[in-house]
Amino acid sequence: MREDTPLSRMDRETLDKTVFPVVATIATRFDDVDVQGHINNAAVPVILQEARVEFNKAIDLPALIGTMRPLIAGLTIEYAAELLYPGNVEIGSVVSRIGRTSFTIQQTARQNGQVAIYAETTLVVADENGAAPLPEGLRKNLNRILLGQATQEPHGHV
Amino acid sequence: MREDTPLSRMDRETLDKTVFPVVATIATRFDDVDVQGHINNAAVPVILQEARVEFNKAIDLPALIGTMRPLIAGLTIEYAAELLYPGNVEIGSVVSRIGRTSFTIQQTARQNGQVAIYAETTLVVADENGAAPLPEGLRKNLNRILLGQATQEPHGHV
Amino acid sequence: MREDTPLSRMDRETLDKTVFPVVATIATRFDDVDVQGHINNAAVPVILQEARVEFNKAIDLPALIGTMRPLIAGLTIEYAAELLYPGNVEIGSVVSRIGRTSFTIQQTARQNGQVAIYAETTLVVADENGAAPLPEGLRKNLNRILLGQATQEPHGHV
Amino acid sequence: MREDTPLSRMDRETLDKTVFPVVATIATRFDDVDVQGHINNAAVPVILQEARVEFNKAIDLPALIGTMRPLIAGLTIEYAAELLYPGNVEIGSVVSRIGRTSFTIQQTARQNGQVAIYAETTLVVADENGAAPLPEGLRKNLNRILLGQATQEPHGHV
Repeated sequence: MREDTPLSRMDRETLDKTVFPVVATIATRFDDVDVQGHINNAAVPVILQEARVEFNKAIDLPALIGTMRPLIAGLTIEYAAELLYPGNVEIGSVVSRIGRTSFTIQQTARQNGQVAIYAETTLVVADENGAAPLPEGLRKNLNRILLGQATQEPHGHV
Repeated sequence: MREDTPLSRMDRETLDKTVFPVVATIATRFDDVDVQGHINNAAVPVILQEARVEFNKAIDLPALIGTMRPLIAGLTIEYAAELLYPGNVEIGSVVSRIGRTSFTIQQTARQNGQVAIYAETTLVVADENGAAPLPEGLRKNLNRILLGQATQEPHGHV
Repeated sequence: MREDTPLSRMDRETLDKTVFPVVATIATRFDDVDVQGHINNAAVPVILQEARVEFNKAIDLPALIGTMRPLIAGLTIEYAAELLYPGNVEIGSVVSRIGRTSFTIQQTARQNGQVAIYAETTLVVADENGAAPLPEGLRKNLNRILLGQATQEPHGHV
Repeated sequence: MREDTPLSRMDRETLDKTVFPVVATIATRFDDVDVQGHINNAAVPVILQEARVEFNKAIDLPALIGTMRPLIAGLTIEYAAELLYPGNVEIGSVVSRIGRTSFTIQQTARQNGQVAIYAETTLVVADENGAAPLPEGLRKNLNRILLGQATQEPHGHV
């Protein structure tokens, strides 16, 4: 389907072979299934969010941003295959971009060993005045698990 | 937030001034609200889908594709402002691309007159062998409401 | 089905002819539909809750309980007929019991003029120590719309 | 809270000490959390349903009812304590009543060893004409795990 669609932002080849620093196993629910008998497209962001909570915990985000709020600024999902119920989904998460006030996570969701979903989520950190610079501690943790980091800096201490 | 984020696919200026051919009014639900007190990011695809059902009906999609299935191939959402509960959301939908086996819808969601969400969804039409050419009747209806059509073909009978 | 089931708590005959003091119109969503093609049983509490928010607002509950929290203590639903999508549901709400620290709401959900759902929800008002007496202002408002009140106190100023 | 509420259908003492024949472990989701910071009352039926799918599979219901449909006729939930996120919920399911065309399941949901939810669900089996007699194979399997069966018929071959 890809030639015919404008789905070109994420590098699927890279994501297919990425060893994700954080992997969450999420159980699908009967409630996620629609009348077509598969996981509805709108249930996928719920599952991705669930994996993101584990990701955020792994990088210590809640403690590091303190009273600031994480806000979702953007979400892109490419549905490469149907997700089915019942069954678990394995979601790998990695940082693909670190900006001044935001960062981007790329995720794949696999079921039965096959990648079914490619996703990209941008989180902004905000205080009472709006978007605010990422705290240094958070930036440091994000840098440790930046996509491609291992290849680019093979001698780095991660 | 836009300079700092990779959210650049959709042309916000164009969408801000688009007169949408299909507009749906969707009520938010208490169930859409998360612990931050606003509509959760993952509830937005549910609301967009609801508007898309009205859009599909407006272009007579269910009848025109017959036994073929509409599948969501891609979804991009830019969260420009928070959506709040209670309150309705007005969602405008327009066709932004027509391919061989798929087409793309762009949507904005407004609350209290302000655009809070920009979204782009790609639907593929599939038969038992996978992606299949769009039926001619559907292609014709999609062409009638293609974004920018009025400018490109000022003499067209829409 | 009723003779064969233990569904006997609510008085359906009374509810069928009740003129509800608060009626909310809730739109069903495609997301409420399950693989059987009807509104899933677990979507009904979401819809009832939505109507309850309107009910609570009508009796000024949020202002009257101040910093206390409303907690759901019990929920009983009798599914008399299937709810279908698309289409609105009309939900009537009335008070059926007023206790010391809690009260009970009875609701019916009608679609196309037919009662499809009978429901009963018990809310407890709680402060930091747990269940707390209903504030007098709330009790007064609840008494005004108590089920059967009109018959019992025909001269009451409602 | 119990003295003050009409929540008296289920025998909590019996359920507290029941050794359930089917126990499902369901993960809560961030999406289940509402603005009060706990699992919303309307998310509980979704979780109970998830456990019921496992229960139905354990008693071979899908195969035994063939082309008949299982329909939910009634649902009663008593919320004894708040469920919190993150964390798993252990849901025990047992048959509490077997009728001619329906049967009733009782469930408890425990979190961190404490029972938070008592629930009772009545399922009707239906064919194209409405409620239909339970198939004998299903009735046999239901009888094997009927609540109190072991005590009442200690010599039974289960």
